[in-house]
Amino acid sequence: MAIQFKVIKECRRTGARIGELITPHGVIKTPVFMPVGTQATVKTMTPEELKDIGAGIILGNTYHLYMRPGHELIRQAGGLHGFMNWDRSILTDSGGFQVFSLGDLRDIKEEGVHFRSHIDGSEHFISPEKAVEIQNALGSDIMMAFDECSPYPCDYTYAKNSLRITTQWAERCLKAHRNTKEQALFGIIQGSVYGDLRRESARQIISLGFPGYAVGGLSVGEPKELMYQMLEETVPLMPDNKPRYLMGVGSPDSLIEGVMRGIDMFDCVLQTRIARNGTTMTSRGRVVIRNAAYAEDFSSLDPECDCYTCKNYSRAYIRHLFKANEILGLRLTTYHNLYFTLRLMDKIREAIEGDFLPEFRDEFFVKYGYQMKNMQH
Amino acid sequence: MAIQFKVIKECRRTGARIGELITPHGVIKTPVFMPVGTQATVKTMTPEELKDIGAGIILGNTYHLYMRPGHELIRQAGGLHGFMNWDRSILTDSGGFQVFSLGDLRDIKEEGVHFRSHIDGSEHFISPEKAVEIQNALGSDIMMAFDECSPYPCDYTYAKNSLRITTQWAERCLKAHRNTKEQALFGIIQGSVYGDLRRESARQIISLGFPGYAVGGLSVGEPKELMYQMLEETVPLMPDNKPRYLMGVGSPDSLIEGVMRGIDMFDCVLQTRIARNGTTMTSRGRVVIRNAAYAEDFSSLDPECDCYTCKNYSRAYIRHLFKANEILGLRLTTYHNLYFTLRLMDKIREAIEGDFLPEFRDEFFVKYGYQMKNMQH
Repeated sequence: MAIQFKVIKECRRTGARIGELITPHGVIKTPVFMPVGTQATVKTMTPEELKDIGAGIILGNTYHLYMRPGHELIRQAGGLHGFMNWDRSILTDSGGFQVFSLGDLRDIKEEGVHFRSHIDGSEHFISPEKAVEIQNALGSDIMMAFDECSPYPCDYTYAKNSLRITTQWAERCLKAHRNTKEQALFGIIQGSVYGDLRRESARQIISLGFPGYAVGGLSVGEPKELMYQMLEETVPLMPDNKPRYLMGVGSPDSLIEGVMRGIDMFDCVLQTRIARNGTTMTSRGRVVIRNAAYAEDFSSLDPECDCYTCKNYSRAYIRHLFKANEILGLRLTTYHNLYFTLRLMDKIREAIEGDFLPEFRDEFFVKYGYQMKNMQH
Repeated sequence: MAIQFKVIKECRRTGARIGELITPHGVIKTPVFMPVGTQATVKTMTPEELKDIGAGIILGNTYHLYMRPGHELIRQAGGLHGFMNWDRSILTDSGGFQVFSLGDLRDIKEEGVHFRSHIDGSEHFISPEKAVEIQNALGSDIMMAFDECSPYPCDYTYAKNSLRITTQWAERCLKAHRNTKEQALFGIIQGSVYGDLRRESARQIISLGFPGYAVGGLSVGEPKELMYQMLEETVPLMPDNKPRYLMGVGSPDSLIEGVMRGIDMFDCVLQTRIARNGTTMTSRGRVVIRNAAYAEDFSSLDPECDCYTCKNYSRAYIRHLFKANEILGLRLTTYHNLYFTLRLMDKIREAIEGDFLPEFRDEFFVKYGYQMKNMQH
């Protein structure tokens, strides 16, 4: 088995749990947030900086890496780990989500998806077998099955068909997977926002026997309440002794809510994307650093943060860097947002450990400035 | 006196010398290359990275900082050192070169220069007094007198007038300078490409008595031969016991040639600018990393380099980062180019120390691939 997972402590008052995920590249405490390194780099960051902030696992995007520089090149470079100089764990998605996001550029069939490159318009075909082959070349610790991610909104019939294809493809991925000793393949549960379809998908995918399971197709535009409902329908069916991964979700509130519903793993581009826009996450909510209000603010981004950015630079300086289009600005906000998020995960684990997760949640929400309606759970 | 300078060793076969420059923020071995931090940041780099590569002094641009974020803001932040979190030495230019580069946007008068901002078109006026006031607010260790930098080509009469204004302005700068204890003010020698004007400017500026002297108005488009000739006209008139700074020059060949003609200090945006373009300086000459030739090249950028970039990443990976427009690419090439240049300065000092600078120069030129015509000195 490529990975091992054990639950270390379960929360008595919520579905939350602390676990340990062991991959060929290290031990990861869960619940965990995985920074996204779409194109073999977590934007603006070096691997050393990722280690500084305590990242143990990052995400790579199969579609992007297949398109550029190509999986065969990465295989030659010693896999994604060797290519990008990252010796801790990597999870790769299956490429499905990106391919489906191509819209008119793709055509979904039972055998797989025909599509055109977003870079040069060249024609390509990804099947479940191909997605596995690419991920085998990338050498990630955790691979994802090729799935059909339903859009939102999406009618019941479409969602049901998409669920059916996802199960078929999951079986084909399992069969095609060559390197089970070093790479774990996770299954993905679909079903859109329909509770019965979520449960059906969960039963089908789980019956195939994967070492870990993801909930896919959420955070694609639906209200958060609906996402949490779907988790409540799905997670109880997922085995306790396997890691549970909520794909593409990572806002602070959703991290906490997801953990409380039994999720162990998260990834999201939110942190790094808004950082490059000058929006930062702080203990008092978001700070949009370009705002004129910060022009002469010589305090740190977040007075409660002890990250490299907050220890060394003022809001006024970071604002200046953004106004002047200086790359260091993007580095400082990205570093901070990822640090903030990984520290939030630390605090969540402490709260589970100390049995005060609901209280932690309420306090965090008030301080961060979330609406009270989010506080009804 | 804000700075001290002593010559430690003079080369017997060339005009080169090893020196020690002491500022309120540290000791700098000369000849030195100063990375340029135009907008209160050396593009893509953190202060810690600059220290890693051994930078002891960096440059700030008065014009840019005056325009954005404004010198009063920087004064409030504890000067440029506090604002950008750099505790080693800083040299600021006078803003003259940038203002004159505005072309139609500026109007040079005896009292100073009227110009419009390149950012928002607002009207401004910089006089020698204003340039000094701004630099006093910035708190740099070394300030530069406000000069009139002649363009190239430029006729004799224009150059002569520009020299005359530069001397007048130098006197006014000396009078306006408020903080002589902590900030040294350097004079700038002009005179375009006319030997007699260079000598006249040198005599006039030196007679005013500055703690250091710069040769300005070179590397503005003239052939390198002409630049070297002007150094040969000028440097012999400059006092031995004061630092000599060749402004805006920094290609590897010019660094060596400049040192051989008695220059102690250099700055240039070349290293960082070409790096962001994907062009790197290596012991075998330039490597343009975007070239298809490097797509599957898993060797390091420069096999003779032991910088962070070369120790950890392949040409193929760096090329991928550039093709994918990833910021880490800019960071890696910038880091390398600055490291390469600071190591070159180390080697130049060793060659002076060991009395083999001409041999070092010839070997370096052959390996780097410079044309033989450059080897006639």
